[in-house]
Amino acid sequence: MQTQATLIALLHGPDAPGIVARTSGWIFENGGNILHADQHCDAEAGIFVQRIEWSPAAADLEAESARFSAFAAQLGMQVKIAPSTARPKVAVLVSKQGHAFHDLMQRWRAGEMPCSVAFVASNHTTWAEETAQYYHAPFHHIPVSSETKPAAEAALLDLLREHQIELIVLARYMQVLSADFLNRVNIPVINIHHSFLPAFAGAKPYHQAYSRGVKLIGATAHYATPVLDDGPIIHQAVTPISHRHHVDDLVRRGQDLEKLVLAQAVRWHLQNRVLAFHNKTVVFD
Amino acid sequence: MQTQATLIALLHGPDAPGIVARTSGWIFENGGNILHADQHCDAEAGIFVQRIEWSPAAADLEAESARFSAFAAQLGMQVKIAPSTARPKVAVLVSKQGHAFHDLMQRWRAGEMPCSVAFVASNHTTWAEETAQYYHAPFHHIPVSSETKPAAEAALLDLLREHQIELIVLARYMQVLSADFLNRVNIPVINIHHSFLPAFAGAKPYHQAYSRGVKLIGATAHYATPVLDDGPIIHQAVTPISHRHHVDDLVRRGQDLEKLVLAQAVRWHLQNRVLAFHNKTVVFD
Amino acid sequence: MQTQATLIALLHGPDAPGIVARTSGWIFENGGNILHADQHCDAEAGIFVQRIEWSPAAADLEAESARFSAFAAQLGMQVKIAPSTARPKVAVLVSKQGHAFHDLMQRWRAGEMPCSVAFVASNHTTWAEETAQYYHAPFHHIPVSSETKPAAEAALLDLLREHQIELIVLARYMQVLSADFLNRVNIPVINIHHSFLPAFAGAKPYHQAYSRGVKLIGATAHYATPVLDDGPIIHQAVTPISHRHHVDDLVRRGQDLEKLVLAQAVRWHLQNRVLAFHNKTVVFD
Amino acid sequence: MQTQATLIALLHGPDAPGIVARTSGWIFENGGNILHADQHCDAEAGIFVQRIEWSPAAADLEAESARFSAFAAQLGMQVKIAPSTARPKVAVLVSKQGHAFHDLMQRWRAGEMPCSVAFVASNHTTWAEETAQYYHAPFHHIPVSSETKPAAEAALLDLLREHQIELIVLARYMQVLSADFLNRVNIPVINIHHSFLPAFAGAKPYHQAYSRGVKLIGATAHYATPVLDDGPIIHQAVTPISHRHHVDDLVRRGQDLEKLVLAQAVRWHLQNRVLAFHNKTVVFD
Repeated sequence: MQTQATLIALLHGPDAPGIVARTSGWIFENGGNILHADQHCDAEAGIFVQRIEWSPAAADLEAESARFSAFAAQLGMQVKIAPSTARPKVAVLVSKQGHAFHDLMQRWRAGEMPCSVAFVASNHTTWAEETAQYYHAPFHHIPVSSETKPAAEAALLDLLREHQIELIVLARYMQVLSADFLNRVNIPVINIHHSFLPAFAGAKPYHQAYSRGVKLIGATAHYATPVLDDGPIIHQAVTPISHRHHVDDLVRRGQDLEKLVLAQAVRWHLQNRVLAFHNKTVVFD
Repeated sequence: MQTQATLIALLHGPDAPGIVARTSGWIFENGGNILHADQHCDAEAGIFVQRIEWSPAAADLEAESARFSAFAAQLGMQVKIAPSTARPKVAVLVSKQGHAFHDLMQRWRAGEMPCSVAFVASNHTTWAEETAQYYHAPFHHIPVSSETKPAAEAALLDLLREHQIELIVLARYMQVLSADFLNRVNIPVINIHHSFLPAFAGAKPYHQAYSRGVKLIGATAHYATPVLDDGPIIHQAVTPISHRHHVDDLVRRGQDLEKLVLAQAVRWHLQNRVLAFHNKTVVFD
Repeated sequence: MQTQATLIALLHGPDAPGIVARTSGWIFENGGNILHADQHCDAEAGIFVQRIEWSPAAADLEAESARFSAFAAQLGMQVKIAPSTARPKVAVLVSKQGHAFHDLMQRWRAGEMPCSVAFVASNHTTWAEETAQYYHAPFHHIPVSSETKPAAEAALLDLLREHQIELIVLARYMQVLSADFLNRVNIPVINIHHSFLPAFAGAKPYHQAYSRGVKLIGATAHYATPVLDDGPIIHQAVTPISHRHHVDDLVRRGQDLEKLVLAQAVRWHLQNRVLAFHNKTVVFD
Repeated sequence: MQTQATLIALLHGPDAPGIVARTSGWIFENGGNILHADQHCDAEAGIFVQRIEWSPAAADLEAESARFSAFAAQLGMQVKIAPSTARPKVAVLVSKQGHAFHDLMQRWRAGEMPCSVAFVASNHTTWAEETAQYYHAPFHHIPVSSETKPAAEAALLDLLREHQIELIVLARYMQVLSADFLNRVNIPVINIHHSFLPAFAGAKPYHQAYSRGVKLIGATAHYATPVLDDGPIIHQAVTPISHRHHVDDLVRRGQDLEKLVLAQAVRWHLQNRVLAFHNKTVVFD
C-alpha cells in the first residue's frame, strides 16, 4: 500500500514542557506530514518517550534523519531513527527444537518480518540443510561445551561484527549466553522464555508449571540481560490448561504461544516500536 | 493521586498537515504541559482525530476551554472539551434483569465511574426500592406498552431535558427505543447487546448462539442508532463455551461479559476517550 | 429447568481397573440414570478421580447417598456426596475493600451461588450496615491486631463451629490466617490472591507487577494452606496491560479479574466440581 | 511416552439408561483398562455421545474393534473406532495463500498431526515445488475455471477415491466446492473461514469486519456442508483489534488465528474427539 518511504524516530530523554510541540513543529516547518505520533511520559522516572512517523518533504532521507537527530539532541533526547524501508541485519540462534525457528523463518520468507536474516547459528547441525536449501540463509555451526564456551562465544561475536548484525534473536537457543558476552555484544538480544515470567524462570518451566498446578501457561519475549530471564519484557501471552493436560501437552500448547509471542516481539522491535529503560519496555503498538 | 484538574479535548475534522504541531504549539505557548496526546488519521475518510490532555497554566479552566475551542475551530476541528473533574449527568435505564444495572451502580458508588447518576428509569418497578435506599438515586417508573410507547418516550424525553442529562446508559433495558426518540434525544445512548455483533442481532441472542453451535459467546457495547443493533461499536468481548453449556449457562456466562463490556464502554465514554464517526469508533485507550 | 433433585458424588482413591464400570454399574442396577460422568486418572500419582451425577430411582436421597458411599468405600474410594439441592453454609470474610465481597453477595442474592451465607465476618465495620440491611446476613466484627490475633482466630473458630460452616471464602480478607488456625479449621478455605501465582506471592502484588514490567496481570483463587499463597490453585485468569497503566489502573483492572475468578472458583466448589490432592486440583468443568 | 496402542471409540445414538455402565462393563469384562471416558447427553435431541479410550487385553486390535462395534450396535449406537496408532490419509487443498498450508505441513512434519498427508492439491502451482522438495508429498495441480469446475471436481473426486482419503483439509482453498461435490464426497471436509461465523460469512470477511468497525476479529474451523459457511463449527478464536489496524493488519493478525484454529480442529478430528450432529459438534477436549 505504502508507496513512499517514511521516517520513524524513537526518542527518549528527560521530560520537559513543550517537547511534543517542538518535535511536531520541526517536522511541520520542514514540510513533513506526521502520519503517527505516540508519546508516553513516565512520571515517576521523569522520562519522556515518543515514537513519531512522518513522510518528509526532503528526498534525501539520510540527511533529514541526521538533521532531525541533531535537533532532538538539543532537546536532550536520545534518538533512534530509520526509514520505513530499512531492513536491519538479524542473526537467528537456534538449537534442536525447531518450532520457533521455522515459524520465524516462514514469516520472514512470507515478507512479514522487515529485516534481513544475515545468518543462522546453532550449537547443533539439525537445521543446517534446511536453512541453506529452504530459507537460503547462511548457516554457522558453533558447537558449545562447558570447556569451549568462551571460544564459541568469541567466534559468535566475530561473526556478528563481521556481518554488522543489529539484532540477535534467540529462537529457543538452549545455551545461556554469558554475562560477559551480553555485556560486550552491544546490540539487542531478544529471547523467548517458555513461561509467564517472573513465574518459572530458569530450566524446565513447563515441568515447574505442571508441578505447581497452574491453570494457565505462558510465554515471555524479553531482551536478554546478564541476569538470566530478568531482562525487560516485550510481550507475554498465556493459554488455559487443565488437569487433563500432561507435561507433553503443556509443551505442545506452549510452543504455539512461543511462536506467536516471539514473532510479535521481533516484529515490534523491527518496526521501532519498542523502547527499553529501567528494565521495562514501552511498546507503541 | 491527581491533585490538579487537567483539560481533556477530543478533536476531529478534515486531515491537514501541521495539526499536531499547531495544537501542541498552542498549549505550549499558553504555558500548559501536555500529559497525554494521542492521534489517529483515518486515511480513507481523510479525518484527523486527537485526544489531548494537559495541565493548563491558567486557573480558569472554563476560559481556557473556550479559547482552545475557538482556536481548534479555526483549524476546522470539532471539539469536545472538559476538565478531568467533570462529572456528566447520566440516566440509567433498566428493566427486570438487574446484573448489568447493579454492576454499574456498584462501580459508580465505589467511585469507578466519573459521572453523576441523575436518575434511574425503568418500565418495571423491580429495582425501585433498592435504587432509592441503596444507591440513593431518584427512580422513575415509566411503564411501556405498544399503545403507550409514544407517550412513555415523550415522558422520558421530558425527564432527560429537565435533568440536562448528557448520557443515557441502557443497562439491559428491554424496550427498543424508537427511531423517532433516538433522532430527537440528541445525546449519546450506550447500549449493551448480549452477543458478538453483527452475529445474532435482535431478540434472544443466546438462543441463537446455542442453535448455531458457536464455540464463543460475546457481548457488544455500542451507541444506539435508529437502526437496531447497528450503531458504532465501542467495546466487545467473548468467552469460550462448549457442548456442555446449555442456554442457561450461556446466559449466566454472558452476563459477566455484559457487565464488564458495558462498564468499560461507559467509563471510556466518560473519560472522553471515544469518538464516533462513519458508524465506527476510535477509542483512545 | 431441573425439577427433580439429583445426586452428585466426587470420588477419589487408588486407581484400579473397572472402577468406571463398577460405579456406573451400581447406579444402573439401582435404577438410577447417569446425567453426567467425568473421570480423570493421574497416572503419575496412581489416583483415580470421578465426578458423577445421576437421578436416582429412590426417593430417599439420604439413604441412597449412604448406600453409594458404603459401596464406593469398598472400592477404596473416598466420597463426597450431596444432592443438587444442597445449600452448604458459607462464611464470608472481608476487610475494607468491598469489590469482591459485593460481587459475591450480589451473585448470591441473584441466585447464582448454591449456598447459604450463614454470616459475614470482618476485622473492620466498613460493610456492617450493608450486610445487615441489604444482604440480610448476620455480620460479626472481629478486630485483629498482632496481640489479639490468637484470640480473634479463636473467636472466629467458635463462630464457624457454632454455625456448622462448611466453606470459608476470603473475599479480599487482608489478614493472614495463622498456620495453627488453618490446621485446626478442618473445612476448605478459598482465597483470592491478586496476582497470577506463583508470580508475585505475598504483599502488594500489583506493585510488584508494575515494577517488573509484566504485560499481563492476573488473579488466582486457591485453597488456603499453612504456607502463604501456596495452596492448590482452583482458577486463574489474566488481562493485558501496557506502559500506559499505572499501579492504580492495575488495581482497578485487577479487581474485575478478582471478582470473576473468585466467583467462578466458589461456584465450582459449591457444585462439587473441585477435588484437591497433592497440592493441585482437578476441576470438572 | 505411550508405548502401547490403545483403542479409541466415538459412539452416538439414542439416549437410554445404562449405556455408560454397559460400555464400561464390556471393556472391564474383556480385560481392558479405561484410560479416558467422556460422555455427553444432549437432552433436547435425546442423543447420547461418548468417547472412550482403553488399553485392551487382546493383542488383536482389529478383532477387538470389530467385537466392540458389534456390541455397541446392539445398544443402538453408531461407532467410529480406531487404534491410537492409526494415521488416517488426508488430502490438503490450498490456493495461493500459504500461511495455513505451511503451518499445517510444518506441524505434520514435526509429528504434531497424527495423519498421513497422501497428497496436496491446488488450483495454482504456487506451492508445487515446495510440496515436493520440502514436505515430500505428491502435488496435484487441478486448475479451476467456471467452465472446468465440474471436470475439476470430478478429477479431484477420482484422486480422493484412488488414495482412499479419509479427510479433506481446506487450508485457505479459495474455490467454493459445489453442493454436488460435497454430497458425493462422503468424507469429512474441514474448512477454515477467516471470520467469527456466523458474522461475515462469504467473501472478504476482513473487509466486512473493517467496515463494520468490530473490535475483535476471528477465525472459524467447521465441517463444510452444501450451504456455504454454515456447517458444524469445530473451533473458533478471536483477537482484539483497534482503530489503528487497517485491513492489511486484520489480514496479518487473522492469519495467525487461522493457523491455530485450523491446526487445532484438524488435530481434534484426527484424535477422534469431534462428533457432529444436528449441525453442531461435540468436542471431547
